Amino acid sequence: MPVFTEYSAASRELRVLPSFAPPLPRLAPRLPTNAEKYEVVIVGAGPAGLMLELLLARYGLSDESLLCVDSKPTTLKSGQADGLQPRTLETLKSLGLADEILTEGCQMWQVAFWNPSNDKDKIIERTSIVQDVAVPARFPHEVTIHQGRIERILETDLLRYSKRGVQRNTKLIDVKIDETGDAEFPVLAEIETEGKRRTVRTKYLVGADGAHSAVRRSMGLKLEGESLDHIWGVVDLVVDTDFPDIRRRCAIHSPAGSVMVIPRERIATGEYLTRLYVQVPGDVNPDSDQPVGDGAKSPPTADARARRSKVTEQTIFDNAAAVFKPYYIRPKKDGAVDWWAAYQIGQRVTDNFSVKDSNGVNRVFIAGDACHTHSPKAGQGMNVSMMDAYNLAWKLAYAIHGLTPSGSSENPDPLLDTYHSERHTIAQQLIEFDRDFSSMFSGKIGASEDGVGGLTHDQFLEVFSRGNGFTSGCGIEYPDNMTVVRDLDGGMNPIQGTDYLSGILRPGRRLLNVRLVRHADGYRRDLQDDFPSTGRFRILCLTSYDLLDRNGTCAQTLAQLGAIIPRFPPSVLEQVVIHPRLLKEFTWNDIPREVKQYSEMSFYSGYEIDDVYGIYGVNPSEGAVAVVRPDGYIGVIAALGDVKRVEGYLEALIRTV
Amino acid sequence: MPVFTEYSAASRELRVLPSFAPPLPRLAPRLPTNAEKYEVVIVGAGPAGLMLELLLARYGLSDESLLCVDSKPTTLKSGQADGLQPRTLETLKSLGLADEILTEGCQMWQVAFWNPSNDKDKIIERTSIVQDVAVPARFPHEVTIHQGRIERILETDLLRYSKRGVQRNTKLIDVKIDETGDAEFPVLAEIETEGKRRTVRTKYLVGADGAHSAVRRSMGLKLEGESLDHIWGVVDLVVDTDFPDIRRRCAIHSPAGSVMVIPRERIATGEYLTRLYVQVPGDVNPDSDQPVGDGAKSPPTADARARRSKVTEQTIFDNAAAVFKPYYIRPKKDGAVDWWAAYQIGQRVTDNFSVKDSNGVNRVFIAGDACHTHSPKAGQGMNVSMMDAYNLAWKLAYAIHGLTPSGSSENPDPLLDTYHSERHTIAQQLIEFDRDFSSMFSGKIGASEDGVGGLTHDQFLEVFSRGNGFTSGCGIEYPDNMTVVRDLDGGMNPIQGTDYLSGILRPGRRLLNVRLVRHADGYRRDLQDDFPSTGRFRILCLTSYDLLDRNGTCAQTLAQLGAIIPRFPPSVLEQVVIHPRLLKEFTWNDIPREVKQYSEMSFYSGYEIDDVYGIYGVNPSEGAVAVVRPDGYIGVIAALGDVKRVEGYLEALIRTV
Repeated sequence: MPVFTEYSAASRELRVLPSFAPPLPRLAPRLPTNAEKYEVVIVGAGPAGLMLELLLARYGLSDESLLCVDSKPTTLKSGQADGLQPRTLETLKSLGLADEILTEGCQMWQVAFWNPSNDKDKIIERTSIVQDVAVPARFPHEVTIHQGRIERILETDLLRYSKRGVQRNTKLIDVKIDETGDAEFPVLAEIETEGKRRTVRTKYLVGADGAHSAVRRSMGLKLEGESLDHIWGVVDLVVDTDFPDIRRRCAIHSPAGSVMVIPRERIATGEYLTRLYVQVPGDVNPDSDQPVGDGAKSPPTADARARRSKVTEQTIFDNAAAVFKPYYIRPKKDGAVDWWAAYQIGQRVTDNFSVKDSNGVNRVFIAGDACHTHSPKAGQGMNVSMMDAYNLAWKLAYAIHGLTPSGSSENPDPLLDTYHSERHTIAQQLIEFDRDFSSMFSGKIGASEDGVGGLTHDQFLEVFSRGNGFTSGCGIEYPDNMTVVRDLDGGMNPIQGTDYLSGILRPGRRLLNVRLVRHADGYRRDLQDDFPSTGRFRILCLTSYDLLDRNGTCAQTLAQLGAIIPRFPPSVLEQVVIHPRLLKEFTWNDIPREVKQYSEMSFYSGYEIDDVYGIYGVNPSEGAVAVVRPDGYIGVIAALGDVKRVEGYLEALIRTV
Repeated sequence: MPVFTEYSAASRELRVLPSFAPPLPRLAPRLPTNAEKYEVVIVGAGPAGLMLELLLARYGLSDESLLCVDSKPTTLKSGQADGLQPRTLETLKSLGLADEILTEGCQMWQVAFWNPSNDKDKIIERTSIVQDVAVPARFPHEVTIHQGRIERILETDLLRYSKRGVQRNTKLIDVKIDETGDAEFPVLAEIETEGKRRTVRTKYLVGADGAHSAVRRSMGLKLEGESLDHIWGVVDLVVDTDFPDIRRRCAIHSPAGSVMVIPRERIATGEYLTRLYVQVPGDVNPDSDQPVGDGAKSPPTADARARRSKVTEQTIFDNAAAVFKPYYIRPKKDGAVDWWAAYQIGQRVTDNFSVKDSNGVNRVFIAGDACHTHSPKAGQGMNVSMMDAYNLAWKLAYAIHGLTPSGSSENPDPLLDTYHSERHTIAQQLIEFDRDFSSMFSGKIGASEDGVGGLTHDQFLEVFSRGNGFTSGCGIEYPDNMTVVRDLDGGMNPIQGTDYLSGILRPGRRLLNVRLVRHADGYRRDLQDDFPSTGRFRILCLTSYDLLDRNGTCAQTLAQLGAIIPRFPPSVLEQVVIHPRLLKEFTWNDIPREVKQYSEMSFYSGYEIDDVYGIYGVNPSEGAVAVVRPDGYIGVIAALGDVKRVEGYLEALIRTV
């Protein structure tokens, strides 16, 4: 259209950029820029470290305040993990980072179980195919994709917020807490870049430096758990096979042993990768650089060395070929093997995920593989690691930005304390599940008729299905703490039902996605899109039938909530409102003005697509209010009208202005 | 997992990059690299030019072969368009470019119609709300977003394939066809970069240089159409209003005039933009630099100048405010106006979209606004422009790569001829629709009781709904040509039904997306994801009930198709197979081996989610085969078993090897 007159505001030029939420407001003073001092130093740029750096950068920590170092030169060669669980996909979606992963990763929808057949000619047969993810989730499948690619996606996005990105070729030599010097920056880290050492000070340091964590070692934290390890072989390749389920996740128990098949993404040639896990029978002592139990280091025995040296590409293939019989399986052609490895692992958790200074303030944290080691077979590693970082990031940002009230002398750092209490709980559950799952997996199915020493398919399937809430990440429930408040007076709980996995609202669990229709524009939308990972708390108000009554409970509640929101720093608290089916059509003028004022674009009918009230366990005659934490987990639930409860929860977590 | 033995192939490092299809194979020799000669020069890097450059770069044209110039210094300030239609969204999705647009753009789901009320106090009232997109589409809504952002997304992606990207600050001075020199590079373009002129030679040149196209002028192409223009005002701003439908697309007809409301995206402040279109009554003569009809240039009359000079920000707001009464509407605060403009427009189409050399080979093309001018109100401009480029790109790539058989002496360049024949047809339909829609829109509703000079709401709604197939882009049907073959012998057409808008297969129309379940892995998937815009043809085989019969029609057809595929250059022809509900479960061994060989990851059950056979109009007793062009439009349909027809279609378009 040929324009003859035109005016353009300078700000219009910004419209071409992807918008993301502005950084969190900052009440604390900023750093002086002349010293090598940081507010956060992250050691390790794997999935946990990168996720943490990206989130902190988005929340507003600049390159002057935030440093992430990694000993490797690039992301390219790193990492063996390949599985993303539904809850991790929801999290990546909430960061605007899910598209490439969903489109180009391998969506794994089904699991096939193969077991010994009674028919001798068949040797093995498919016992059943079940959905890989059995619980409600926004993305009802896993995705498998090369770990380096996840890191590349995180790092590319990071460079939108940080000029430096990750400082590569830089390793941590030592870290200690030294309060004698600069008490505001009590963490001293000695780091080395290409041979040159220097010491930096920081308020906080996070060790996301893997299973052999230097931060964990420097801080004297202890790994606890199993006293013996298993040996495994794993291979990524393009296969040629007549096995019918090669593109499904498979647990194959044959008379010759067990193999797990993990279908992987399409590569540039148009071919598809497959990963095979093959267990080498028997246990060995833990690797010597992993302290066990009381920290005593046990050198590997001659037996372990001998057995490890026997694992080669050929033994892995021979073993796999025997398990697949009567089907054939082989590399599609020369060069079809992308990667293979042998590794040794047990189930261990570090006893503490953080170390405090003398004032009781958490100063050094560990995250990811530094906290927990376990088998890769349930596809948990990269997920639990990134979710460690996701849990820590907003708490750290709130502490650094001065958004959280100061602690008391008995309880000086309550918000950051919740990092250990929440994530250690999950890590414990992880290794317990992994122990059960791994044992089951390596047990022979149908080996003995009377069940002694053997395992039935139904038992295996039962562990698999029960574990689904945990392995999907969707059934995680954080324990009680200042951010998860469950102490509702009897009868005051507005939530009906206990099937939390199916969506019933529950403090400590993530808010399940529902589909609904927005009032303002009829947009048929996913509710989780109103809960992006921008570091904000949200009030979720499920109104009741009396919404159109100017003197009803809804109107009072919305007015009181409208009075609370401005008490907190600007933009830190958002509001989402849902209404049940009402008796008549209405416009903005018929409902409390606070709805349009605070929720014009987050006000929904809760019945036109999904039955939101039913899914969340809320009686539409009564309504309910929930507060959702910045990471999408429900913090507290109150009856509609009990705004004091909401206010009390928020005041404990966010400084008022 | 601590690894103790590891092997990694060099190619594994590539796994961190987004994969996209490899370039098209090239049968033609490559350019010598020592002259400033190109295979394609694109003039203009708006949506049409960028889309074309990106596609050609993806198909395999290197920076040595492909040059795109633009006179502007950046994308930042360009462009006033803001609407993306469902078919354009499908196309962007097929390029892996839809995510940011779908997530951060404004999804426009509904239209509200406001008309004069019989109740004097109300002045206007909402007559109805309807879905904005009334036809089946993968994305059943429009998206509005700043044009510069679309360009930024295209250009960012382009830089993955091209080091140079767009050569900015460079304008075209003149272009001509000169066969006396280098007959292989007969197009001579004189271009100027920051004052310096140079001449480059190219095989093809595409003018995507807008309404005032220098390419169109140099080539003497003529705009044909209306002899009078309309004047419009448009403004983008953050509004403060009590009008209840401000977040819906609205057509408001009030006694004081007409306004169209276009809700726009959220900006970085968290506020939302709104666009208002306000018509200034009356017609004027066309702008003098736009040749009309026979090419005579009519200078603007004093009257036009006078009326244009009266359009200011204030008159636009005054006019809008009067139409919204009794509701108020104003900028939310100082600085809330992002952009405003006044423009003058009529409906015109250029007579030819390409110019041939003396051998009848198409050498110079125009695309986008250079081909058609029309009002922005139906949200078509950016869409039709990008789809021009999308239509041209694969044809040009096939010509340059030597993938298309040579033409005959009577018909030397049949494939590239289809660019004009297809897109000129659409451009004609566009301006005809726009003329009707614009007239309707500016007509007063309910103005006269007897209907003379007035317009009923039902008439308006009828034009709106009828136009939906066209405006959504989903109802486009290309005319017969070598790439669209509809001449089925009577009784041989395996397709039942004529409701093509709802998905019935029809040559010349795009393949509607359906949801289905993949055999290999149970992935619940969108069929369009197997038709990405990688420049490949696809055979879509809807098998019949006899798939498990080794001597049935299916088996014969699949074997014959399997024999055809290797006759064409590697990777140019892909195959997608769908099966109806069969009497028993089956594995790969029970069906023709060509299914796994060519379609292991594109073989679907056609009934578990959508009723694919029903939607496509195929009787599952009979089956059908379709060939889908690289741009997702159906080229030919044949009865299952009539593989000759498929082969004949392909042989005319793709060279055999």
